[in-house]
Amino acid sequence: MQINFWNKQIETASRDEINDIQLRRLKNIVKQAYKSEFYKKKFHKAGIESPEDIKTLEDIQKFPFTTKNDLRQNYPAGLLASDFDDVVRIHSSSGTTGVPTVIYLSGEDMDCWTDLVARSLVATGCTKSDVFQNMMTYGLFTGGLGLHYGAERVGMAVLPIGGGNTIRQVRYMQDFNTTTLHITPSYLLHIYGKLDDFNTKIEDLSLKRAITGAEPHTEQTRKKLEELYNMPCYNSYGLSEMNGPGVAFECVYRNGMHIWEDGFIAEIINPETGEVLPDGEKGELVLTNLTRTAMPLLRYRTRDLCHIYDSDCPCGRTHRRLSRIMGRTDDMMIINGVNVFPSQIEEVVMNIPEVGTNYQIVLTKKGAIDKLIVKVEIYSKMFSGDASQLDSLNRKICEELKASIFVNPVVQIHEPGTLPTFEGKAKRVIDMREEI
Amino acid sequence: MQINFWNKQIETASRDEINDIQLRRLKNIVKQAYKSEFYKKKFHKAGIESPEDIKTLEDIQKFPFTTKNDLRQNYPAGLLASDFDDVVRIHSSSGTTGVPTVIYLSGEDMDCWTDLVARSLVATGCTKSDVFQNMMTYGLFTGGLGLHYGAERVGMAVLPIGGGNTIRQVRYMQDFNTTTLHITPSYLLHIYGKLDDFNTKIEDLSLKRAITGAEPHTEQTRKKLEELYNMPCYNSYGLSEMNGPGVAFECVYRNGMHIWEDGFIAEIINPETGEVLPDGEKGELVLTNLTRTAMPLLRYRTRDLCHIYDSDCPCGRTHRRLSRIMGRTDDMMIINGVNVFPSQIEEVVMNIPEVGTNYQIVLTKKGAIDKLIVKVEIYSKMFSGDASQLDSLNRKICEELKASIFVNPVVQIHEPGTLPTFEGKAKRVIDMREEI
Ligand SMILES: [Zn+2]
Ligand SMILES: [Zn+2]
Repeated sequence: MQINFWNKQIETASRDEINDIQLRRLKNIVKQAYKSEFYKKKFHKAGIESPEDIKTLEDIQKFPFTTKNDLRQNYPAGLLASDFDDVVRIHSSSGTTGVPTVIYLSGEDMDCWTDLVARSLVATGCTKSDVFQNMMTYGLFTGGLGLHYGAERVGMAVLPIGGGNTIRQVRYMQDFNTTTLHITPSYLLHIYGKLDDFNTKIEDLSLKRAITGAEPHTEQTRKKLEELYNMPCYNSYGLSEMNGPGVAFECVYRNGMHIWEDGFIAEIINPETGEVLPDGEKGELVLTNLTRTAMPLLRYRTRDLCHIYDSDCPCGRTHRRLSRIMGRTDDMMIINGVNVFPSQIEEVVMNIPEVGTNYQIVLTKKGAIDKLIVKVEIYSKMFSGDASQLDSLNRKICEELKASIFVNPVVQIHEPGTLPTFEGKAKRVIDMREEI
Repeated sequence: MQINFWNKQIETASRDEINDIQLRRLKNIVKQAYKSEFYKKKFHKAGIESPEDIKTLEDIQKFPFTTKNDLRQNYPAGLLASDFDDVVRIHSSSGTTGVPTVIYLSGEDMDCWTDLVARSLVATGCTKSDVFQNMMTYGLFTGGLGLHYGAERVGMAVLPIGGGNTIRQVRYMQDFNTTTLHITPSYLLHIYGKLDDFNTKIEDLSLKRAITGAEPHTEQTRKKLEELYNMPCYNSYGLSEMNGPGVAFECVYRNGMHIWEDGFIAEIINPETGEVLPDGEKGELVLTNLTRTAMPLLRYRTRDLCHIYDSDCPCGRTHRRLSRIMGRTDDMMIINGVNVFPSQIEEVVMNIPEVGTNYQIVLTKKGAIDKLIVKVEIYSKMFSGDASQLDSLNRKICEELKASIFVNPVVQIHEPGTLPTFEGKAKRVIDMREEI
C-alpha cells in the first residue's frame, strides 16, 4: 500500500521525540494560559503558584480539568489569552442549551490547525490531484471551514458546496470528477438511496474515498457505506473546543485514529472519579491543546467515551490511536435503569443485512415503565416482501438487541425511504418521556 | 481623514505605471487563455493567428467579447487553461436558468484575489483591530468566502456567521464588539426594524462600518442606512465570473468604486453595438481579468450598466472609479413599451422620508395593458396615522414615480413590517405578467 506523509519527520517521530515536543509545548502553553483571566484564577484556586511547575509530562495531572461549563460561564472573553488584535477567527456555538461557547484563534493558531488537517487528509491518501467536495455546512460550524482550509493547503481542488441539494451534489460529483467527499455518514447513506432516481451508478462517479464526520457512527455503519460505495470511508475526530477537525484521523489502515500528539495531549479518565486510566482502558477523553495561543485549553473534558491503542500501525506513524467514540457521557440513555448508548443499537441493526441504511430510536413512557422503540427500514435488495420473512426478521432484531443492551425493545420495520432522512447531522434519538 | 493603504505603491501608481502593468499582464493572460480549448477556437475564429499580436492596450479591442452564454456552453472545463492539478478552488453557480457556470482558481489566483479583497477592506478603514461579522452566505457563493479570506489576510477577527438568525447576529455584535458588517443592504434594513424587539440600541453596539454587497442598491438606500445606523456603508462591486468581490471598492470618500486596474481592464461599451465608449459615458461594463491563470476571462460582458469616472480622488488612489450599477441589461423591465429599471423606482421611494425600509415591485397584466404596482411600508416615526396624510403620501409617491419613470404606477402603502423581508438577497420584483 502506498503511504503518503505530509510531515514525515513529525508523523514518524520516536516516542522520546514526541515526549520532548509535548513537554516543551506544554510548558509554553501553560505559561500562555496564565495570561487569561480564567486560568489565572483557576491556577490560584488549585494552589498552582507558578506555571513553571512543570518538569515532566506527568505534571499535567497537577492541573485541574476544564469543562464545557467553564467555557459557558466565562463567555465571551474569559479564556482569551492573547491580545485581541492577534485574533483572526472567532467560532461560537450556541449549543443545545442556548448558552454560547466561543473559541478564538490567532493567525498562527489557524496555521497550526490547517496544517494538522492537511496532514490528516494526506494520511488518507489525498494529494493535490484530488477533487474535494465539501458537503459539510460552512460558517460557524468548524467542520466545514476546517476541512476546507486543510484541503486547500494540500492543493486539492476544493468545491465548497456545503450541505443539502442532493441532485446538485450528485451532478457536481460527475461534472468535476470528485474523488473525495467530506460528508456526514447519514447523508452519505441517504444519497445512496437517491442514485437510482438520478440514473447514476457508483461506476459513473470517480469517488475514491469519503471523510465521514460530525456524527458518531459505528463500525457497522462504516462497513455498510464502504460496501455500498466500494470505497474506504475514513473516521476522524475533532471538536470545536479543540479548533474542530484534525485532532485525530485514520490512516489508510483504518484501524483507529492517530491522535496528532505534537498538537494535543490525550488522557483517558474515569468520568466518575477523574482518575487517569492506563492505555487501552475505556473512559472519557481529556485533551490539552498544545499550540493554540489565543485561547489555550488545558485538560478539557470532551465527554467522549473511547480508549487509546498504543500498538504499532503498519503505516509507520508513531502517534497513538484513538478508538471509535463509543458514546458521549451526555448521550447515554437510561432505560428502566439500564445504561444504553445509541451506538450500541446502531451497531446491532447496521450489522443485519436485511436492514436498510436508516433507523430511528424512540423512547416513550407507559406509567412508570420506559419503552424503547427501534424503527428500521428493510433493505429492498435483501427482501422478498412476504409476511413470514418480516416476522422472523423482527424477532431476529429483537433478540440481537436484547442480547446486546439488556433491554427488551419494540422493533418496527418500515418500507425503504419512509423514515426521516438528513442532509446534515442526523437526529436519531427521539426521547418523548419528558413530555408525557 | 486618515487614509490607510494595503499596497500604497500600486494603489497610487501613476497612469503610466498602471498602463505598463496592464499591458504586461494582458500579454501574459492572453497567452495563458490560448491554452484553453475555448479561447483557442475563439481566437482562430476571430482571425487572431497568434496571441502575441498585442502591442498596445488598445489592441485588446481586437479580441471578441466573452459572454455568460460562452461559459454555459463550455461547462464544465472548456475554459480551463491550466493543469487541473493546479486548481485549488472551484466555484459553480446553477444560475436562474439552471445551466451551471464554473470558475477555477489556482493557488496563485486565490492569492491575487485575497490580496485585492484585503486591499479593498483597508481602503474602507479596516485594520487588524477590527471585528468582522460576515453575514453573507458561505459556500459556492463567492461573496461569503471572498470577503472572509480578505478580512483574514488583513488580520481582522473574522466571525464566519453567515446569513440569517437575526437574534443571534445582534447578540454576537454585542458580545464580540463587532465593528464591521458584511451584509446585504436589504438585511441591514431588516435588522434595524428588529433592534427594538431585542431592546438593543445602535449606541450599545460598536459598529463602525458596513460593507454592503450582493445586491444592487441605490444611493438613496445607502443614505437611509447611513442615517439609521450612523455609520458609513461601503458599496463594492464584484461578480463570480471575476472571482467574486474585490473588483472595485469604495474608499472612505464613498464617491465611486476604485476599480483595481492592476487586476482588471475595464471597458464600457454600447450594449447594442458593442462599440467602446469613452470615460464618463454610461454603458455595459466589460471586464478582463488580468491575473487568473487557471481560467482567464477576456472582455467579459458583465451586463451591468454603469460609467467610469477618471477624476482625481482625495484619497490619493489613482485607479479610476466605477459609478454605482444602474441596472443590469437583463433586469430591465419593459412596461407598456417603456424601459424601466428597478433601481429607478428604489431611488424614488427611498428618497421619501415617510417611506420605511422595505418595498416591492409587482407587475401584472390586464388585457394587453401592463400594470405596475409599487408597494411601500410607512416609516412609523414619520407618520401620524391619519387617513388624509396617507392619501397625500400616496399621491406624492405616484407623482414622483411618474416623473422619473414615465409610467403611471399604482402605489400601495402598507403598515411597517408587513412586506416580505429577506435575510439574504432580496427579491424585490415580482413579474406575474407571464403567468396570466
Ligand atoms: Zn496508521
Ligand atoms: Zn478614493
